[in-house]
Amino acid sequence: MIIVLKPEATRDVADALLAKIASLGLKPLFLPGTERVVLGALGEERVLEQLHLESHPMVERVQPILSPYKLVSREVRPHDTIVSIGNAVVGGTRFTMIAGPCAVESHEQMLATALAVKEAGATVLRGGAFKPRTSPYAFQGLGVSGLRILCDVGREVGLPVVTEVVDVADVDVVAQYADCLQIGARNMQSFQLLKVCGQAKKPVLLKRGMSARLEELLLAAEYIVAEGNDQVILCERGVRTFEPAMRNTLDLGCVPYLKARTHLPVIVDPSHGTGARELVSPMAKAAAACGADGLIIEVHENPEVAKSDGKQSLYPEQFRRLVHELRPVVEAVGRRMS
Amino acid sequence: MIIVLKPEATRDVADALLAKIASLGLKPLFLPGTERVVLGALGEERVLEQLHLESHPMVERVQPILSPYKLVSREVRPHDTIVSIGNAVVGGTRFTMIAGPCAVESHEQMLATALAVKEAGATVLRGGAFKPRTSPYAFQGLGVSGLRILCDVGREVGLPVVTEVVDVADVDVVAQYADCLQIGARNMQSFQLLKVCGQAKKPVLLKRGMSARLEELLLAAEYIVAEGNDQVILCERGVRTFEPAMRNTLDLGCVPYLKARTHLPVIVDPSHGTGARELVSPMAKAAAACGADGLIIEVHENPEVAKSDGKQSLYPEQFRRLVHELRPVVEAVGRRMS
Amino acid sequence: MIIVLKPEATRDVADALLAKIASLGLKPLFLPGTERVVLGALGEERVLEQLHLESHPMVERVQPILSPYKLVSREVRPHDTIVSIGNAVVGGTRFTMIAGPCAVESHEQMLATALAVKEAGATVLRGGAFKPRTSPYAFQGLGVSGLRILCDVGREVGLPVVTEVVDVADVDVVAQYADCLQIGARNMQSFQLLKVCGQAKKPVLLKRGMSARLEELLLAAEYIVAEGNDQVILCERGVRTFEPAMRNTLDLGCVPYLKARTHLPVIVDPSHGTGARELVSPMAKAAAACGADGLIIEVHENPEVAKSDGKQSLYPEQFRRLVHELRPVVEAVGRRMS
Amino acid sequence: MIIVLKPEATRDVADALLAKIASLGLKPLFLPGTERVVLGALGEERVLEQLHLESHPMVERVQPILSPYKLVSREVRPHDTIVSIGNAVVGGTRFTMIAGPCAVESHEQMLATALAVKEAGATVLRGGAFKPRTSPYAFQGLGVSGLRILCDVGREVGLPVVTEVVDVADVDVVAQYADCLQIGARNMQSFQLLKVCGQAKKPVLLKRGMSARLEELLLAAEYIVAEGNDQVILCERGVRTFEPAMRNTLDLGCVPYLKARTHLPVIVDPSHGTGARELVSPMAKAAAACGADGLIIEVHENPEVAKSDGKQSLYPEQFRRLVHELRPVVEAVGRRMS
Repeated sequence: MIIVLKPEATRDVADALLAKIASLGLKPLFLPGTERVVLGALGEERVLEQLHLESHPMVERVQPILSPYKLVSREVRPHDTIVSIGNAVVGGTRFTMIAGPCAVESHEQMLATALAVKEAGATVLRGGAFKPRTSPYAFQGLGVSGLRILCDVGREVGLPVVTEVVDVADVDVVAQYADCLQIGARNMQSFQLLKVCGQAKKPVLLKRGMSARLEELLLAAEYIVAEGNDQVILCERGVRTFEPAMRNTLDLGCVPYLKARTHLPVIVDPSHGTGARELVSPMAKAAAACGADGLIIEVHENPEVAKSDGKQSLYPEQFRRLVHELRPVVEAVGRRMS
Repeated sequence: MIIVLKPEATRDVADALLAKIASLGLKPLFLPGTERVVLGALGEERVLEQLHLESHPMVERVQPILSPYKLVSREVRPHDTIVSIGNAVVGGTRFTMIAGPCAVESHEQMLATALAVKEAGATVLRGGAFKPRTSPYAFQGLGVSGLRILCDVGREVGLPVVTEVVDVADVDVVAQYADCLQIGARNMQSFQLLKVCGQAKKPVLLKRGMSARLEELLLAAEYIVAEGNDQVILCERGVRTFEPAMRNTLDLGCVPYLKARTHLPVIVDPSHGTGARELVSPMAKAAAACGADGLIIEVHENPEVAKSDGKQSLYPEQFRRLVHELRPVVEAVGRRMS
Repeated sequence: MIIVLKPEATRDVADALLAKIASLGLKPLFLPGTERVVLGALGEERVLEQLHLESHPMVERVQPILSPYKLVSREVRPHDTIVSIGNAVVGGTRFTMIAGPCAVESHEQMLATALAVKEAGATVLRGGAFKPRTSPYAFQGLGVSGLRILCDVGREVGLPVVTEVVDVADVDVVAQYADCLQIGARNMQSFQLLKVCGQAKKPVLLKRGMSARLEELLLAAEYIVAEGNDQVILCERGVRTFEPAMRNTLDLGCVPYLKARTHLPVIVDPSHGTGARELVSPMAKAAAACGADGLIIEVHENPEVAKSDGKQSLYPEQFRRLVHELRPVVEAVGRRMS
Repeated sequence: MIIVLKPEATRDVADALLAKIASLGLKPLFLPGTERVVLGALGEERVLEQLHLESHPMVERVQPILSPYKLVSREVRPHDTIVSIGNAVVGGTRFTMIAGPCAVESHEQMLATALAVKEAGATVLRGGAFKPRTSPYAFQGLGVSGLRILCDVGREVGLPVVTEVVDVADVDVVAQYADCLQIGARNMQSFQLLKVCGQAKKPVLLKRGMSARLEELLLAAEYIVAEGNDQVILCERGVRTFEPAMRNTLDLGCVPYLKARTHLPVIVDPSHGTGARELVSPMAKAAAACGADGLIIEVHENPEVAKSDGKQSLYPEQFRRLVHELRPVVEAVGRRMS
């Protein structure tokens, strides 16, 4: 860790800080420059957190050398983690399609959509039972009865299911019905939820928050893995920027960036990432081309009557065509669709 | 509501949509332009949500005329809501100071800080027992024993207390110890938490999310008020932008913007809003000058050893000076410090 | 155009505004709602700009129905514009590689790099002679002598050249030496420069500004086309967001978004778009996969000694490999590398 | 400067880099850590720019210790720079009001507005002759005849004038008519324009770019001062964020941040900073409260017919009231209106 002192810091201040660093077992360094004194701390710098050096009135700033996350890092585990969702897998050389409606609305709607996406090539079914909605007047999901429908339909068609959990109190019931727990963008930093999902015996699909830095996403995953659950999938779903043309700005650059730093699989949600049906297919191909491990896509048997996110949901026929067009792109980057 | 159709939309599509609008009791309008057909819907347009018109493949976009929030709107209730926290009040012509450490660390630390902020002029005491922290390796707060310390110290010094609640399961216990429930920036869209706090019999201090639009903040407050609790204080605490110089960008423009649209009081947190001790005092004055109803400020008896946010915490002496310098600004805009 | 009046607007105000609308030859509409009066104006609404309706104290907001740009729109010209740079083309079914160093440094450096990128498959050579640099103490480019080197090397190796013009006074000299004028991100809204490049007899490569909305990019292109020059290439090069992990956030979603709305070709700059050599190749493939018409990539014969942007410049060998790996992706989306 | 090497960097790489550092006269440091090797360079690190260390394939990142700007820094010149615009001054203990219309439209309009703002307390008159406009179809300003009107009216009413210059070729003519050259937000990084304004014998009002970091703003000012002109005023005018409620997000936190780091005066433009007439007055007071040296405000004798920015222009009567209400705020922070 590098500690830059303010110009007015005296030698005594520096000595006191160096003594603190040494007391924690790190090697202290005194680096007097022409305009600033800089201190260094060599070793496992993460223990310095407890010194709160940045709070000291004579410290200008503190610059860590090491990443603050550890368990999710490729430096700790160089090989790709493969996550199993029921009989489907995410990670490695496969490219996985997760698809289904934004919200579970009825058994009929789920079944029709599930059959369509399975036939087209999806290997995991999605559907929301607990829906976080911006307005209290919007459809809030079917809750536990939605979970039951999702689970039943998954079994009927033979697809494992993933669904969002929004509240710590619901983790048990969601884990009972679902093959994978989804933590949504708005809850990426609901730390208690992360911990409880880390204790659950189900894989976790963790979406990046709307304005979460990639380091924060990795630290959120670290919360889950630190509880003993290393079956975590990261998901880029667009971030919030100044651009009003699209619902979100899909940050695909994060795919190769993350995959270089973590062993966890990274998938992309082009539905929320664009907010527009017309843009889903090109962005799905782009995600595959830059190395994503899969996609999660909203498909509805009839988007015109969808209770949420209809504008960004594909018609079953569009999804079929997308999978068809996606295959050569996936193969062009040396992977295969599972 | 204005519905802009795509250029290729036929008259039949328009007629079908108009019939749907009429079936919900709104007055439908057909407005054929030179390049686009536009439809209108006159009346209580919020019911149109259920039609999901934006999902229709022939609809280019939908533009609401009315705000999506209602109960928190000044159009519904023109007069300022005054929120009572114990014997303190927020709103109206008073200017309220809420102060205290980021986290409750010990009885001694809380007591020393509480005495200092009370003597300087604060009328509400803050302190976190459940701390949402970006890293799993950072101090996570004392939990319920922190609540007890906060509550005890509040009684000792005679100040009502506000503290953050991060989980639905904790609302009861926090409400038992605290005079006001704080919902933090990361939970502004934890909708279940909003609902449960809306059912609690305590006022709620609702912080704006890190990248929350003002309309979303008002809708979050609408969730609380819709449950029957109109004792809600909005709090601007800085938003996330491209600027790395400060922890957040304090969006003071939102103060007059919000106060024109809602009857709820609006306060400002210049500690998180800047992340730097040196900037707290000037931004506190700016907040007062543009019409905020109060401030929430981090003060620690000794920021150098604070377990969190020490960098942005004021020394007690700095807080005293701030209150002293703030008074003429508060009076210059026609208010008085309570 | 839709004009929403404030709640307190009287019928007289509405009538006066309607009369103004009618006086410009548009059909005025009066749409009284339950909470707001809305006015409409049917016809070529762009003439309403001169009424400045948004400035009226009784107008709450104004919502245009039509896009503010016209000449660059696909509605005006449905077919793809093909831009010729020397003997190379951009647009249509081809996928074009533009490559070269950030800055022209010497004849040797340019020649070595030009030979390498041509051999690898680039059909246009890039190189900056006038360099806009954040710091006055950084290398500012070789100016006119750099132009001469670029031009000479282009002829030697048989590649047309593109280079940035930063100042109106330089347009003539740059147009004399270069086959295509580049307008950089920082100058996307240097309107006088846009106009003068619109009068030049050379194609223009227009980069999106660092925080430019897509509508603003299209309006910047409209400035050029309105002067009679329709040989304009749009270029996404990353936008500025809250994310510090990368130099910019590459907004690939804009590629299909723009191509649906404009007939102009759209290319991508993954070098500036990521700022990191390691990310260039995956993002180049992603750009191809989502429908870009080409790429502009920084390559330097020896990035370690590059005078600018070395961190994001590919080694010649990396560029060769990129072109090799890119080909199947380009073909997977039905295009061919030119 | 701190140079963090990649984990795979060998001792030889480190030695080669250390030799380069030493060859430039800096003291090299070798700091081997547990997971990374860190190198240091003590001394005038700005010369290291020429080594382009960040481009080296074995360098993970480079962290400067010193700020990249120098002449504008308070460390170089601790005392406030006072800028003179005609007989008005900006900086020090005074608080300066600059006011006038967005655009010069006619002699009558300018005269009426100038008389009103002078009578209310403004000491500098603003008015645009060259208008940068997003759309080519919008009013582009009167050009040189606008300059003449502005200059004439300034003399008639006895106010010095400030006006924007958008093109290098216009600097001479603008300097002939105006008492202060304004560089607009879109041109903050038009480096040639900065240099030429640095050579002019007139003070420069430099607006922060729409998404410019504060370090970039200071470097832009450094361009001007490096040419010998230290009469530079910095101006915060709002930045672009995700928030659509306002035209821009006014970043007032930058005022105390900048004033701690530079000796140049800092003023605020609440007109562009909010885009809404109703918000100008509260944000003007907030700017004064947090230590701004003055304001630049758009006032139009009749905003309803203003050719640009009418929505954010004050009526003369509103400006009069603002100055009246501002005075006690200015005095509350220990300054006086000039």
